[in-house]
Formats: sequence, structure tokens, C-alpha cells
Amino acid sequence: MIDKLVANVKEKSPVCVGLDSHLDYVPENLREGTASQVLFNYNKKIINATRDLAAVYKLQIAYYEALGLEGLQAYKRTLDYLRSEGLISIGDIKRGDIAATAKEYARAHFEGDFEADFITLAPYMGLDSITPYLEYLEKGKGVFVLLRTSNPGSQDLQMLDFKDEPLFYHLGDKLKELSKDYKGSEGYSSLGLVTGGTHRDEAKKIRKRFDDQFFLIPGYGAQGGTAEDVNLYLNDGNGGVVNSSRGIITAYKKHEDGQERFEYYTRKAVEDMVRDINGSL
Amino acid sequence: MIDKLVANVKEKSPVCVGLDSHLDYVPENLREGTASQVLFNYNKKIINATRDLAAVYKLQIAYYEALGLEGLQAYKRTLDYLRSEGLISIGDIKRGDIAATAKEYARAHFEGDFEADFITLAPYMGLDSITPYLEYLEKGKGVFVLLRTSNPGSQDLQMLDFKDEPLFYHLGDKLKELSKDYKGSEGYSSLGLVTGGTHRDEAKKIRKRFDDQFFLIPGYGAQGGTAEDVNLYLNDGNGGVVNSSRGIITAYKKHEDGQERFEYYTRKAVEDMVRDINGSL
Repeated sequence: MIDKLVANVKEKSPVCVGLDSHLDYVPENLREGTASQVLFNYNKKIINATRDLAAVYKLQIAYYEALGLEGLQAYKRTLDYLRSEGLISIGDIKRGDIAATAKEYARAHFEGDFEADFITLAPYMGLDSITPYLEYLEKGKGVFVLLRTSNPGSQDLQMLDFKDEPLFYHLGDKLKELSKDYKGSEGYSSLGLVTGGTHRDEAKKIRKRFDDQFFLIPGYGAQGGTAEDVNLYLNDGNGGVVNSSRGIITAYKKHEDGQERFEYYTRKAVEDMVRDINGSL
Repeated sequence: MIDKLVANVKEKSPVCVGLDSHLDYVPENLREGTASQVLFNYNKKIINATRDLAAVYKLQIAYYEALGLEGLQAYKRTLDYLRSEGLISIGDIKRGDIAATAKEYARAHFEGDFEADFITLAPYMGLDSITPYLEYLEKGKGVFVLLRTSNPGSQDLQMLDFKDEPLFYHLGDKLKELSKDYKGSEGYSSLGLVTGGTHRDEAKKIRKRFDDQFFLIPGYGAQGGTAEDVNLYLNDGNGGVVNSSRGIITAYKKHEDGQERFEYYTRKAVEDMVRDINGSL
């Protein structure tokens, strides 16, 4: 799947549309039905308005979990829809647990109801919390492990000084070593990294050091990352996808006729983002 | 809820029964019905066989997620049942994400379908991934943040040297500072820590340094922790709960008449564990 993602970036753009779908974000004229139906229909409209422009869709599972079983029904239906349309999905789940438990999470998110093409993982518990997912990489799945996140709190642990460097580099080196066995034909590994788009100073070094790894880059837009920032992580426009969530899925709210032209403004937000990123290459 | 947990430990024992419930663990004569019904009935029988002995029940959500919506239905029903019976629950979810997302996870696991009394959190993204949960501590909820986990991979990050100590101490100091505002009348904070029961060398130092914090202690039994190991984390038998999952919920499998006497052997496993821990005090 990593090769298909690289190809999508080449053919479409490095845009990842973040479906952090909150009921409050849904246009009022689309709120009829159960929460599950409303969220799924909202997602489907966003997907269909942007599918020729976006490389991949990322679902932040917390927004669905917050609505309980109803919400997770919408999570499942959205992933099913993406798969049936041949589009690529990232389940943004940031799980991380001991090996026996990681096996269960792998079953949960690479098979069955919540199957996604890629998932995100959190590394606090160490490498044996990551390795149980690797057998799925051989079957075409992929993971993005948190390296340097986009939030202010990333200072508290990731940036601590270890051997004269922020410690995330040390972790990254271990992940890089692991990633080598899962390289696709385009040169990128199915074991990728999450690198926040809000850290201009480190971006070049991160790109160079983890040269075979594909990046999931959050932080563009609402969190303050600019096109120049995120481009530092890309190799001539590839090697990563740049996520935007609220900036795309609530773009319609800025316009008086936003509700009636919801799909138009959603698409336009992606077009603008593509232009912004390409313009600063 | 932290005060009630401390009282439960005093009145019952420091045992936390881990409902890491896998369909393969369910006695064959209890496997009729949907996966959701089977898992819920299994959990209910375990709960009722042990409720006067165990302080708290911990549900590892990965085992339920692995069965998709069906599994999460059983997760919800088990939490509902515990609450309706006045028993205490821990949702072992180990979530960790940016503040906006953490708010959604807090809604998901402190309200609505998946409401638990306590949840576990992962700190890789830093303190701003923890703070959105704190408002719920004022309403009687509690959290356990991963500090030093029980798995071998805990070496990879938690044990890295930072200012001449394993770095988890540095993180712990920050959490301790945060925890002070959420102390119950028994002297323990609703912001607790996960400290693996497999690290004898550090246990005394951890107990002393984080003296106001209640511990969730995994690793007893199947993972190799002994009664002596886990007791080092307790203050004369309190100040923490010791989790055992497979050692209790699959105990019946070791006996020829295990199926017929499933509840008996489950209860006996908890009795043995209480005796083991008390015996080494």
C-alpha cells in the first residue's frame, strides 16, 4: 500500500484529508438521521468532493469513540466506503501496548470491522509494542509511528536531551533500522513516521536522517504549520502526506452560502492547500 | 472514586482482576450466542465469583476492539454492569493525543457508552495530552498514566539516561506536580501511575518518590512479577492495585473439571493471589 500512496502523491497531491468528524461540524441541512448516518454521510460527501485531489483520508478515531457504538459504526462505514472505492485510509489510533495486547489491536485495525490501510502507533512502551504489527506490513498494510509530534507538549519528552540530541532521534534510529525490511518498490518503507509540521528547525535534519521513511505530517493550518514548514519534510513534493482536518472539513463555515455549497467549499479548501504547498516547493 | 478504591483495597484486597477477555478463554459450555453475549456473560460470571475479594476490574479494550462493534458492545455492557453493581472499573485504553483529540477521548471514556471510573493514558506526546482529562478528576474520575511499564521494551525509551536517571523519573516528577491538586481524603491523588511489577530494583525508589500517587501495577503472574516484587510498590498493602488477567480468567483451564467448576477456580485464583501478596508483606 505504501507504493500506492507514493503514486497517489505523485498523481494527485500530498494532501491527507483528516476526517476528525464532529457532529457540530456537519452542515445543519445534513443532520437528519442517527448520529452514525449523519457522520457517515458527511464523510462520504467530503470524500467524493475531494477524491481526485487528495492522496489519502485519515480518520481520527477519538471523534468516533466519543459517540460510542453509534460513532464507531460511522467509523467502520467510512473505512468500508474508502476501501470499496479503492481509496487509501489511515486509522489515526495512536495505540501502544505490550506485545500480547498489540496483537489484539492489530487484529482490530488491520482486519475486521475497523480495517484500515495504515494506522498510527505510539512508542512510549518501546519496540516490542511496535513489532507485533510488522507481520501485517508484509501483507500490504502500513504504520506511522509517532516521532516528533506537532503539539507544544512534544517538548516534555520527545525533546529531552539524550546524547546531545533530542531523544526522539534515538527512537527514530531504532525505528529506521526496523523499517528497512519493509521497503516498497518506490524506496519508501511501510513503517513510516509522524513528524509534526510545526518544527521548521528540525525538519531538514529529520528528512535527511530518515531518508527511506514516509512521513505523516500533521500540524498544517489550524495548528500553525505553513506550506514552507511542511515542504521541508518532502522530497520534491513526495515522501510524505500533509494532513489538514478542520481547515478542510469546516471550510464551508466561513461562507454565507457555505451550507448550500458545502461540497464546493470543501473541494476548494483542498485545491487551495495543494496550490499553497506546490507554490512553496 | 480514588477514596473508594483505597477503601476497597483496605476492605477486600489490592487485587485488580484484568478482564482481557478473549473468546478462546471462554469455557466451551458458555459459548452459545453472539460474541457480545458470550463475552459479557463470561465477564459477569468472573465478576460475580470474585466481587467480594477484588478491589477493582480492569478491561483491556484491545481485546474488545479486536471483535469490532460486537466486542465493544460487550465492553460497554460490562462497564454498565460494574457501575450498576457499585463496583469500580478501569478502562485500560492507553490513549494519548493532542489536546483537542484528548477532549474527545475523555468524552468517550468518562461519559457515554464507554464510561469507566478510571482510565489509563500514555504520555509520549507530553503533558498537554494529559491535562484535558483533569477536569473529570474533579468529578470523581481517575487516571493512571504510564510511567514504567512491565514489558521488556520499556528499556527502549523509559530507561534512557537523562540527568543521571532513567528518564521516566523526570516525567514522573512532572506528573507528581500535576497530581497534587487532585488528592483524595485518604492522601492519594486521582492522578495515578502505571508501574510494572517486574522491576524490583526500582520499586522502592518509585514508591518513595511518588508517595502521594496510587499505582496500577501490571506484570504479576503471567509476565513474571512475584508477590515480593509487587509489594515493594505498596505501603503496608495499600497505595496500589495489582493486576492479574490470564492468571485469573483462564485459571479454570488448568483443571480437568475446570469447565464445570469455572467460577470456583476463578475465585480460587483470586484467593490464592490475595494470600500470596499478603503472605509476603
